[in-house]
Amino acid sequence: MNKEVLDGLFRPKSVAVVGASAQPGKIGYTVIKNLIEAQYIGKIYPINPKADEIKEILGLKVYPTVTDVPGPIDAAVITVPAKIVPQAAEECGKKKVKGLIVITSGFSEVGEKDLEQQVVDIAHSYGMRVLGPNIVGTLSNSDRLNASFAPFLPLAGKASLVSQSGALLIAIDAATFTRRVGFDKLISIGNMSDVSIADTIEWLNEDENTSCVTLYIEGLKDGRRFIDVCKKATKPIIALKAGVSAHGAAAAASHTGSLAGAVKVYGAAFQQAGVLQATDLDNLFDLTLSLSLQPPMRGENLLIITNGGGVGVLATDAAERYNVPLKFAPADLQAEMRQYMPDYGSPKNPVDMTGMAGNEWYQGTTQLALKHPWVDGIVVLYCETAITNPLEIAQSIYKAVQDSGVKDKPVTVSFVGGERSAEAMRWLVEHGIPAYGAPDVAVNAISALREYAHVKEFANEDIEICQNDHRDAAIEIINAARADGRDSLTEIEAKQIFALYGLPVTQTYLAKSEEEAVSLARKIGYPVVMKIVSPDILHKSDAGGVKVNLKDDHAVREAYTTIMNNAKSYKPDANIHGIVVQEMAPWGTEVILGSVNDPTFGPTMMFGLGGIFVEVLKDVTFRVAPVTTKQAIRMLDEIRGAPILAGVRGEKPRDRQALAETVCKYSNMILDLADEISESDANPVLVYEEGKGAKVVDARIILKNK
Amino acid sequence: MNKEVLDGLFRPKSVAVVGASAQPGKIGYTVIKNLIEAQYIGKIYPINPKADEIKEILGLKVYPTVTDVPGPIDAAVITVPAKIVPQAAEECGKKKVKGLIVITSGFSEVGEKDLEQQVVDIAHSYGMRVLGPNIVGTLSNSDRLNASFAPFLPLAGKASLVSQSGALLIAIDAATFTRRVGFDKLISIGNMSDVSIADTIEWLNEDENTSCVTLYIEGLKDGRRFIDVCKKATKPIIALKAGVSAHGAAAAASHTGSLAGAVKVYGAAFQQAGVLQATDLDNLFDLTLSLSLQPPMRGENLLIITNGGGVGVLATDAAERYNVPLKFAPADLQAEMRQYMPDYGSPKNPVDMTGMAGNEWYQGTTQLALKHPWVDGIVVLYCETAITNPLEIAQSIYKAVQDSGVKDKPVTVSFVGGERSAEAMRWLVEHGIPAYGAPDVAVNAISALREYAHVKEFANEDIEICQNDHRDAAIEIINAARADGRDSLTEIEAKQIFALYGLPVTQTYLAKSEEEAVSLARKIGYPVVMKIVSPDILHKSDAGGVKVNLKDDHAVREAYTTIMNNAKSYKPDANIHGIVVQEMAPWGTEVILGSVNDPTFGPTMMFGLGGIFVEVLKDVTFRVAPVTTKQAIRMLDEIRGAPILAGVRGEKPRDRQALAETVCKYSNMILDLADEISESDANPVLVYEEGKGAKVVDARIILKNK
Repeated sequence: MNKEVLDGLFRPKSVAVVGASAQPGKIGYTVIKNLIEAQYIGKIYPINPKADEIKEILGLKVYPTVTDVPGPIDAAVITVPAKIVPQAAEECGKKKVKGLIVITSGFSEVGEKDLEQQVVDIAHSYGMRVLGPNIVGTLSNSDRLNASFAPFLPLAGKASLVSQSGALLIAIDAATFTRRVGFDKLISIGNMSDVSIADTIEWLNEDENTSCVTLYIEGLKDGRRFIDVCKKATKPIIALKAGVSAHGAAAAASHTGSLAGAVKVYGAAFQQAGVLQATDLDNLFDLTLSLSLQPPMRGENLLIITNGGGVGVLATDAAERYNVPLKFAPADLQAEMRQYMPDYGSPKNPVDMTGMAGNEWYQGTTQLALKHPWVDGIVVLYCETAITNPLEIAQSIYKAVQDSGVKDKPVTVSFVGGERSAEAMRWLVEHGIPAYGAPDVAVNAISALREYAHVKEFANEDIEICQNDHRDAAIEIINAARADGRDSLTEIEAKQIFALYGLPVTQTYLAKSEEEAVSLARKIGYPVVMKIVSPDILHKSDAGGVKVNLKDDHAVREAYTTIMNNAKSYKPDANIHGIVVQEMAPWGTEVILGSVNDPTFGPTMMFGLGGIFVEVLKDVTFRVAPVTTKQAIRMLDEIRGAPILAGVRGEKPRDRQALAETVCKYSNMILDLADEISESDANPVLVYEEGKGAKVVDARIILKNK
Repeated sequence: MNKEVLDGLFRPKSVAVVGASAQPGKIGYTVIKNLIEAQYIGKIYPINPKADEIKEILGLKVYPTVTDVPGPIDAAVITVPAKIVPQAAEECGKKKVKGLIVITSGFSEVGEKDLEQQVVDIAHSYGMRVLGPNIVGTLSNSDRLNASFAPFLPLAGKASLVSQSGALLIAIDAATFTRRVGFDKLISIGNMSDVSIADTIEWLNEDENTSCVTLYIEGLKDGRRFIDVCKKATKPIIALKAGVSAHGAAAAASHTGSLAGAVKVYGAAFQQAGVLQATDLDNLFDLTLSLSLQPPMRGENLLIITNGGGVGVLATDAAERYNVPLKFAPADLQAEMRQYMPDYGSPKNPVDMTGMAGNEWYQGTTQLALKHPWVDGIVVLYCETAITNPLEIAQSIYKAVQDSGVKDKPVTVSFVGGERSAEAMRWLVEHGIPAYGAPDVAVNAISALREYAHVKEFANEDIEICQNDHRDAAIEIINAARADGRDSLTEIEAKQIFALYGLPVTQTYLAKSEEEAVSLARKIGYPVVMKIVSPDILHKSDAGGVKVNLKDDHAVREAYTTIMNNAKSYKPDANIHGIVVQEMAPWGTEVILGSVNDPTFGPTMMFGLGGIFVEVLKDVTFRVAPVTTKQAIRMLDEIRGAPILAGVRGEKPRDRQALAETVCKYSNMILDLADEISESDANPVLVYEEGKGAKVVDARIILKNK
């Protein structure tokens, strides 16, 4: 990242508006008006070739070109028609402008990709960066910068928003005031011709006025860089991913492909990147508030303090729903809190101070709880009553937080009530404590702080990429298949590649004659399985092309003849490579591993239990490759059928370690062969009891089109 | 329901406040003040034995007792200490008061059950009904009645709220103004000593000022009556059930019991009752707004109209999440809507009029859509822009609805924006159109109107209760076991009862000798299964007490000796009834049926797939008995493993009809024996292919403690 250049784009000290207009209603007028009304702290230079005629716009001197401007220009807001944007870029380059904010539309979003690329090429040739085109602009409260056609700066706050929808950015800008969720910057990212969401996150992570990054994403262009940047970020990142409905799911050639909708792969990528995924627009605002104001919750002990049983119960339900289930407070803390409630109150958890709770009790309980080492986070609930003053309750909570001196434990608040409560909550938010109108939302907000602590732990794990010397051998097998005019490998070819990357495949060899089959079977050891190998016969069993549990030479000879005859009568013109002779793996728990080459994130692993689990329940999980063994263990744990691998019905636990290592190796294989493999499956993989490993019984690789 | 008496309680024409006080801060003062401030349309009579001294409270004449009041009294608000409430009730009875609103606490909630019952008995002896005790009171906008210590009447609206939490009721009262969700009545239900939630719903269903009933429930007392009343109700009912976290789940003796948490049984009961379940407090308000203002959505075709692609995508995602997935609009409607958008707009669905959309386009598109027969419901979205006026957009939407003349299709709206949008949404709500600040919430709100149409269809299905003449025989078997000191039946006893109720059990007979075993095996036909029968041996297989696939006399003899020896060495002092000889059912799909006797709803059926589905995935579903065959079919469809019964991996579909009939008979059995059976299982039940029925292979009945 060239920080200085991006500083010039997002926090310019001077702005030129190229396409400035004196005519109200024109974007070239609106941007200037917005810059002035926001009381921009830098210089504003309107640019219009008819500068001689126009002279001034809103009291500012107009220049015919940027090169005529006397001082330096950090950013140029471009509002001229698409066709002349390259020329404007050229001039900006000559003027040594740092960044172009291209509001103009009519580029790749309507098919004009070449024009867009031309602008980027010109910009890069001068060391400039391009935001947009096809954007609303960019806004920054700390610079009083509204370089956009959004009508005003948002409510001031510590989060910054990057939005892929311009209309939504404008609507959110206005909504910051009604929702009381503030932002420092609003950045419209548009076509992402040059500056991407990842670039912007990288820069915002260094921005002193941003404590949290909020994203509205329709589709990323650079999935892997996005993951890398987010993993390295030290500030919380929250994303709302739009477009997750089934309409968009592409047809897929393999089992894995059909299970990997964009929504699942994005979900996996966000988790790996340490990005919190918002469920909807309200949730995006709710989490932005808590993550921009409060520290992460570093342990599991959540304490709920309330003056009403009803909201206490709702919060308890929510705690379970959001994966921070309540435990009873330790006895010493309970005993201490007893002083702030009547006899019929409860110090357990939720701590119910009852409707008698006033300012002192709220302050006392909150302070005790914050200072107790057992407590990792607190949700304070208040039901508006006639005998208390919500603002005073809010001030008591704030005072408790201040007086405790504790800064590393999060607090969220919910006041249920009317305008007095709303005012008290506004006061709390202004004093850095997130407050919400419903108890479950306050719990959800603190659960996000817990999840954030969690995902950052994972995201910072080391990635092991296994070194592998066998890539050339794998490419050779693939090239042979391509030369053969095929876009998929045979089972035996796929297993050869799997074996090169260390996957535990069943021993499988190709026999081209009865004699060879017998000698291979002896080499493997009885019993064996035999299967037809032909790119023209996909459903081997239907063709009578499979024989199992062959126990001696005689059986192998007989099977060879039978399979060959069956295949020939099933499809007389089939191209038959021969018959594989294969080790017969003992029974084990069936799982499926697979991969897709996601258009956004590239090689991505899938894991699931086999049989009905995958076919009926679609009980599978994904990770963008490479997957570490630790991550793979978490994949095994997160499917619904996870207890199967832990051992059910008196069975011994399965060899989860061996399976996880297999996932790790598999993921390294698809990464190493990212340019070659489109989709693949190892299905089934049989997993044995602990210490006895796993075996890949069948394998499939579909090649990328070249 | 005695409507006249309840009218007197909820819409009294005159109110006495028993325990009236002249001292501000006392509840007996606050209630009078609240009645006056709300401008109650009826008469208010303060009652205090020291009437001579006090004379007047807030300008109203005080009477020493209710019997001294000159005119009739509909309702008496009781605020005197708990101990003298019976005496107050007595006097009210004599005065022919219709209903007692007992605000006073200190009854069953602190263990004083007898005192509470005494009050109810006195009331009933005079034909009075009791609301409470331990309540805030009751409020009614249409009567300007605030007979409570909640500080003011709620924002006026068409919904009515019944709350089991007083503190929450007061907080919601205030929140109606900030959330702009209005209510006609707020009813605090308290201890439900007499008037229950069901009674209140029954009355509200007849109330001309209530269009929708909103419930906050912690625990029902009369589950079955609640279901009956809700099924008959013609107004939408929405319930937020608090207390669904695992903390409360009771220990259970059977497989079914351990799976039936309160949350699942309540969920099933709500569905059967046609009650919509709110997910949280925000959702309770959101659904109240749409269900109190709009008609049900009677078909599946939802159309989304928008001026912004971003919110359109978010709404599309939400439509899928909330089970109203979008389909493309028909060609003729698309063609008509084309006139209200630029070329780059889209008339498909979402209908994207683009940011250029103004008042006329909103009006035109909405009106066209409403009038088109394909459309069943509409969500209109708006992103605030600088060039449009939100209020005018709102008015255009309203005008479209009015001008269309269409009244039977719901419309919900979402405006994303700032204060101008908030004002426009308030205007819409005041004009009967629910409006929300986020697109997914508007979709959720209309999906609830769709779900309402759905659940009411189901709820109005006829219930078949099978007549059964075998109850006496069943009771005889149960009594014999009880006489034997047992609290559970043996497999053979349980199967006898199952068979009496028409369940397809495998033929199972008890042999007490080797000879008898052989003769029974011949009677059944080979092969057979043999199992030890002993109340002291629960895990028969572990004891070596099971032998399967016995094909001839010799095998039966051998098995008899082996099982008997095994059992004796496993548990030398076991009470052995003998050995069952049993038909060996051919393989089929394993399912499990079971029952619990729920403390709230009584006999409740469970259905799930057997094996890992129930053990690992807890993939089960519940219905309160009786369950019709149609309902049972829906149970089969709603588990995650449903495709298994439809036939997977090339298998033929299973006999779902026979299984559903078995569920129906089972449910009639547990209802008929509700006083006897605590929990039961049929596990496994084997289901065969279509037309070939099902077989109950093992059976278990646990008796109620008597």
